Amino acid sequence: MLKRFQTGTAHLFIPGPTNVPVDVLRAMNTPMQDHRAPEFSEVLAPVLDGLKPVFGTQEAAIALFPGSGTAAWEAAITNTLSPGDKVLMARHGQFSTLWATMARDLGLQVEVIDLAWGAACPIREVERRLGADRHGEIRAVFVTHNETATGVTSDVAGIRAALDACFHDALLFVDGVSSIGSLPFEMDLWGVDLAIAGSQKGLMCPAGLGLLAASSRALGAMDQSRSLRSYLDLRAMLRAHEAGSFCYTPPTHLLLALRVALSRLQAEGLQNVFKRHNHLAEGVRAGVAALGLEIVAEHRSIASDTVTAIRTGPSVDARDVITIARERYNTHFGAGLGPLEGRAFRIGHLGDLNEGMCLSALGIAELSLRAAGAKVELGAALVAAQQVFASDRAEPGFAIAAE
Amino acid sequence: MLKRFQTGTAHLFIPGPTNVPVDVLRAMNTPMQDHRAPEFSEVLAPVLDGLKPVFGTQEAAIALFPGSGTAAWEAAITNTLSPGDKVLMARHGQFSTLWATMARDLGLQVEVIDLAWGAACPIREVERRLGADRHGEIRAVFVTHNETATGVTSDVAGIRAALDACFHDALLFVDGVSSIGSLPFEMDLWGVDLAIAGSQKGLMCPAGLGLLAASSRALGAMDQSRSLRSYLDLRAMLRAHEAGSFCYTPPTHLLLALRVALSRLQAEGLQNVFKRHNHLAEGVRAGVAALGLEIVAEHRSIASDTVTAIRTGPSVDARDVITIARERYNTHFGAGLGPLEGRAFRIGHLGDLNEGMCLSALGIAELSLRAAGAKVELGAALVAAQQVFASDRAEPGFAIAAE
Amino acid sequence: MLKRFQTGTAHLFIPGPTNVPVDVLRAMNTPMQDHRAPEFSEVLAPVLDGLKPVFGTQEAAIALFPGSGTAAWEAAITNTLSPGDKVLMARHGQFSTLWATMARDLGLQVEVIDLAWGAACPIREVERRLGADRHGEIRAVFVTHNETATGVTSDVAGIRAALDACFHDALLFVDGVSSIGSLPFEMDLWGVDLAIAGSQKGLMCPAGLGLLAASSRALGAMDQSRSLRSYLDLRAMLRAHEAGSFCYTPPTHLLLALRVALSRLQAEGLQNVFKRHNHLAEGVRAGVAALGLEIVAEHRSIASDTVTAIRTGPSVDARDVITIARERYNTHFGAGLGPLEGRAFRIGHLGDLNEGMCLSALGIAELSLRAAGAKVELGAALVAAQQVFASDRAEPGFAIAAE
Amino acid sequence: MLKRFQTGTAHLFIPGPTNVPVDVLRAMNTPMQDHRAPEFSEVLAPVLDGLKPVFGTQEAAIALFPGSGTAAWEAAITNTLSPGDKVLMARHGQFSTLWATMARDLGLQVEVIDLAWGAACPIREVERRLGADRHGEIRAVFVTHNETATGVTSDVAGIRAALDACFHDALLFVDGVSSIGSLPFEMDLWGVDLAIAGSQKGLMCPAGLGLLAASSRALGAMDQSRSLRSYLDLRAMLRAHEAGSFCYTPPTHLLLALRVALSRLQAEGLQNVFKRHNHLAEGVRAGVAALGLEIVAEHRSIASDTVTAIRTGPSVDARDVITIARERYNTHFGAGLGPLEGRAFRIGHLGDLNEGMCLSALGIAELSLRAAGAKVELGAALVAAQQVFASDRAEPGFAIAAE
Repeated sequence: MLKRFQTGTAHLFIPGPTNVPVDVLRAMNTPMQDHRAPEFSEVLAPVLDGLKPVFGTQEAAIALFPGSGTAAWEAAITNTLSPGDKVLMARHGQFSTLWATMARDLGLQVEVIDLAWGAACPIREVERRLGADRHGEIRAVFVTHNETATGVTSDVAGIRAALDACFHDALLFVDGVSSIGSLPFEMDLWGVDLAIAGSQKGLMCPAGLGLLAASSRALGAMDQSRSLRSYLDLRAMLRAHEAGSFCYTPPTHLLLALRVALSRLQAEGLQNVFKRHNHLAEGVRAGVAALGLEIVAEHRSIASDTVTAIRTGPSVDARDVITIARERYNTHFGAGLGPLEGRAFRIGHLGDLNEGMCLSALGIAELSLRAAGAKVELGAALVAAQQVFASDRAEPGFAIAAE
Repeated sequence: MLKRFQTGTAHLFIPGPTNVPVDVLRAMNTPMQDHRAPEFSEVLAPVLDGLKPVFGTQEAAIALFPGSGTAAWEAAITNTLSPGDKVLMARHGQFSTLWATMARDLGLQVEVIDLAWGAACPIREVERRLGADRHGEIRAVFVTHNETATGVTSDVAGIRAALDACFHDALLFVDGVSSIGSLPFEMDLWGVDLAIAGSQKGLMCPAGLGLLAASSRALGAMDQSRSLRSYLDLRAMLRAHEAGSFCYTPPTHLLLALRVALSRLQAEGLQNVFKRHNHLAEGVRAGVAALGLEIVAEHRSIASDTVTAIRTGPSVDARDVITIARERYNTHFGAGLGPLEGRAFRIGHLGDLNEGMCLSALGIAELSLRAAGAKVELGAALVAAQQVFASDRAEPGFAIAAE
Repeated sequence: MLKRFQTGTAHLFIPGPTNVPVDVLRAMNTPMQDHRAPEFSEVLAPVLDGLKPVFGTQEAAIALFPGSGTAAWEAAITNTLSPGDKVLMARHGQFSTLWATMARDLGLQVEVIDLAWGAACPIREVERRLGADRHGEIRAVFVTHNETATGVTSDVAGIRAALDACFHDALLFVDGVSSIGSLPFEMDLWGVDLAIAGSQKGLMCPAGLGLLAASSRALGAMDQSRSLRSYLDLRAMLRAHEAGSFCYTPPTHLLLALRVALSRLQAEGLQNVFKRHNHLAEGVRAGVAALGLEIVAEHRSIASDTVTAIRTGPSVDARDVITIARERYNTHFGAGLGPLEGRAFRIGHLGDLNEGMCLSALGIAELSLRAAGAKVELGAALVAAQQVFASDRAEPGFAIAAE
Repeated sequence: MLKRFQTGTAHLFIPGPTNVPVDVLRAMNTPMQDHRAPEFSEVLAPVLDGLKPVFGTQEAAIALFPGSGTAAWEAAITNTLSPGDKVLMARHGQFSTLWATMARDLGLQVEVIDLAWGAACPIREVERRLGADRHGEIRAVFVTHNETATGVTSDVAGIRAALDACFHDALLFVDGVSSIGSLPFEMDLWGVDLAIAGSQKGLMCPAGLGLLAASSRALGAMDQSRSLRSYLDLRAMLRAHEAGSFCYTPPTHLLLALRVALSRLQAEGLQNVFKRHNHLAEGVRAGVAALGLEIVAEHRSIASDTVTAIRTGPSVDARDVITIARERYNTHFGAGLGPLEGRAFRIGHLGDLNEGMCLSALGIAELSLRAAGAKVELGAALVAAQQVFASDRAEPGFAIAAE
């Protein structure tokens, strides 16, 4: 087959793994090191310290598991729950669905609240179910903070309020894989017991680290857990981390990368990071609206600042949009997953990003939509985004950091 | 504290993670890619193909789990065995000990044959136990092919012969983490059912991939397994691999690295790789013998070609040797583990290595031993190794590859 | 001072040094090599071979001088001309001005045709002067193929025709620094005697190599030259190249880079490279026109396909546009040089580039112009460029290469 | 032809370009930057500052020319001398020979003192000639501080004393290409007027920068110089440097590298750098002596601490030693140059080096010498070097730097 020889930047707008900043990539460009030499602690310690504000915690213990974010999902479960335990969760996208499946595979009884893909975790319904749980059978509530498949952010603080309103002591599990490091996340304030992240989204590193933060309540729950586990044993890993090491061979290069990524977040200032994500997301959403396209998120108020899932309408196959963008324009969008396959495509706008990149994404999206048959006006999204990018950056204090 | 500013090559002689070749490191120096683009199959497919000869198999299915080799240990167990199953294994070093502990943690009944650290897996005793297992309660035999803590290689073919001699149908599990890619490994020929490797030893990549090869018998055993598992589910991963992907976010950069590492092994020729390891190991062992020091391996015939553990004798603390080598000479040796702490240090000689590097290791070992109080003759090990390195390389066919 | 912490891609649209492709950068990420080992010829030979089609020559001898393109300007002069020799050239931009100054500094008599910045080399006037040169005093005609300061491409074939029409045997010197590798360049066909390039523009490498291609007539002229020279001696360098080496220490890393860059050009196909540059330039020019801004080039027919210099009009300081783009949007445009300082800015669109990058450039240019006080309509340039990018790519044969 | 597939570190012991430290190489692994952005001064300024102590000067002006060290040789001449000027220099190796040839090519009258290769610059003879120069015709004395071809260091302070003793005001030119950054160099103290260095030796970067430091007397001499020059014009480059830039496109990546290399030298401490070079050189020389081989340097007191040239004796072709080392052992030694071709090989021991590397060099040298027919005792050089490396490092204050 004839293929276009690709030139220039490969524009990456999948919602993760995200663009790795130049200095983070450079940090991995280093010969192998001796992970038992004292210097290794100069790698691990700043990583563990630097993660605390990103998780919004002073209290929690944080463990790094070599593996994907999925490994951290499992670690959260097997370290604190036991087969037969009941958990409550909403299923409203690909990732909440997969997590529910994992929970069942690991022996849990999963009480599912099924919603349309595009909805957020329904606080009132959660509260109703918790209220109805007279015998305290629900041991945990699982929340997908940011459903990457639909571009929907749920209100974790609201779930905490629901738990508190019912005086329910279920553990609060939060999947923050595509939010932590990009969206405000307040583990301590929200009373999250188990928070899960991955290295490859807001943390701007390659995939390969599953991160698990556990509250003191979660640590206490470890004593009751009867789940069999070894590789993902939290207690053993925390003990190793305290000694400056891992239970087994650490992924040194990823840690070197994460150390630099965290210092980037710190240098920019976390509040600036969050504002930047919001600002760029506002531009993208304004652009999508200007094209007359709908987003998958049911309401603007729950639209995610890290990823936007865009419906292409009945006459346009979203897969064509993705293929055209990739083959003609060296640009990568996220696919619609599950029931959204062919119906939606996604623009990831998280991590190491700026305005010029978002304009490139929207411009190529317009061209690809048109070539795939959509009746969109070229430039409409671009102008709308530019208007956002022209005005908001003037706000005092935004994205200003001393160097 | 005052510290020496380190200059020059950091000589890495830990028995893994090993030195990453320049072109492998370079392969990781690449912007993040879209793992759902068709190009990803150009990464995964050659990795899966290239691993087959390294495992010595045409038949087995190979899965790559984001995680360490320890994850692959667990995957081997939870995918084929069930809590309560009995397994038989020798415990004769740190890694066999840890694997036995994991097996217990995962609910298995572990029948342990305890041996001195330095012994190999005792074929006769295994055969005796299998013979005594009238009711076929032993579901699997675990073998640590190369005990990295002691520098001992066990005879997997011998264990297969023992199983066959007893007409015993236990599954044969082999930990090949520090042998596969460096020592001859014949999964099909030896009838290995589950073979475990990691990316960071003979495969010359950073840590972060656990590799599991499963025979058709092992795949059959998956149906009976009642172990709870999700992240490390073999069936799901094999299905994903067949579709050119992973069950969850793949560690793309590691796959890019492994693709290059495998093409290096192929370019050198696996037989040449094995001969080179043997040749360099012979040099190191000759050197150690010339110093009058003992190796931990109980007999020369079981001494590993990938790592040599060296006893420093009663008057010398091996930790001092390691510290001196590191601080004065920018050279990293492996520590004595468990009961060998302070009594032995290890020279890893696997992966991307050559004669000059081994001379450097021995020369610095001599200097560090002396500085730590050992009565060794400077140069003795070097001359002995040089004599090996001067003669053997002339053998026809050794390390010769067309370019 | 407070500074914005820069995130995301640093968009580089200066007209050189240009964006270094990922694989070219990676080629430099290698330990130092022994340039006297036989392997070095595997670096130099493909570079020298690969440059021939890029220069459009089968005949010329090509030399690589460690230095910038400016060094190759000097080498062209000192190897073929002598102090006191007369040369003819147009001065119509910063780089033709600098070259004329260099010629004077090196003792030449420079007959200058002064033109407005924005004009092309005036073929008729050159022909008139050559015709008037009854005694053949003009030893060489210097042409700046692509004046990077103004974005103007001159007609080298036309100058050759002028020389031929006058039966004038002056040497034809062509500065192809910002054209070779991006624009069609036909050294043999056009009868160019000395063609000059640099590594950092269409060749997509860092700066550090000046390239000089010399026709057989130019090589013959070396015998007459009485210029003192040593470092830039062409004969010595050509002799060294024939022996697979350099006269002095070669810049090995740059050669490794250039080898990969040339193989990229070959893989894309030079004709596709040229069409792509034209296509992207058409988009940029359409965009600029849609904003109602003038380009510095006096006529569309001489507008360069590698760089566009844009007048900002009397009320807008172009330096503000550049500063805003850089500080707010992490985007780098070229400055107006000399008399154009403050009056124009430049968008480089050469080398490793694609449509999404050009949209980003135009979008940020619009935002920056507006913020600097220009009355431009946001999106106007973007839509105009998109229309180019939507249609032209369908041409059969364009940018299609078998992989 | 069958070739060995090379594995492991390519041991580089040529006397330059030298091993590039990992962090220096990493600094070059960066996308192209805008050299007209204000950030560029953060690159150039610390380079210019960091070079001052390395040249041993507070007074001199330092210019960086894109090119090799040879370019800086030429710049020194053409900026301060004129055709017809007489200069005095010793010719005692390949590099002094080449410099003398360059001086003639550039029109100077070169009064040569021819010596055996292996001799140092003869202070008494220089003094005699200066004393005999009644009419002050000698405008400059050229000294090759460290003759890389023979491994001989000359006494620059002694030459200064000779000049002073004769009350002679000739300029003092010093080629410090293979000394500056590795050996003590005191430009101000020794009254050096023009000091020349390259990026690729003690400065541990790739080749591509010629460095020229000029005293105030040298700057004054620029006014008299009638040499034609342009690319290498010192005044123009110094003016550009003062404005934070270059006269033409700077080699940004090399500057990024040099910035890191200089900070390494500073972190180690220049005195420690010099002591380390001496220490490692002592080890190498002790090793060579123990093998019964002669060095090219005529006397131990003039033997260079950066490179040792070793005679192989009448029955051994030094080229065989080099080929065997390269092909069998992936080790690169320097060749004998000019009259030393086939008679000597060179071990470069400068730049980013440590004891383990030197042991590797000596061990492979022994093996290669033996294989090439030399009657050397394996291990003899190694033991001798180890004895040096065992004892001297204990000196208080040596190679100790706070981190």
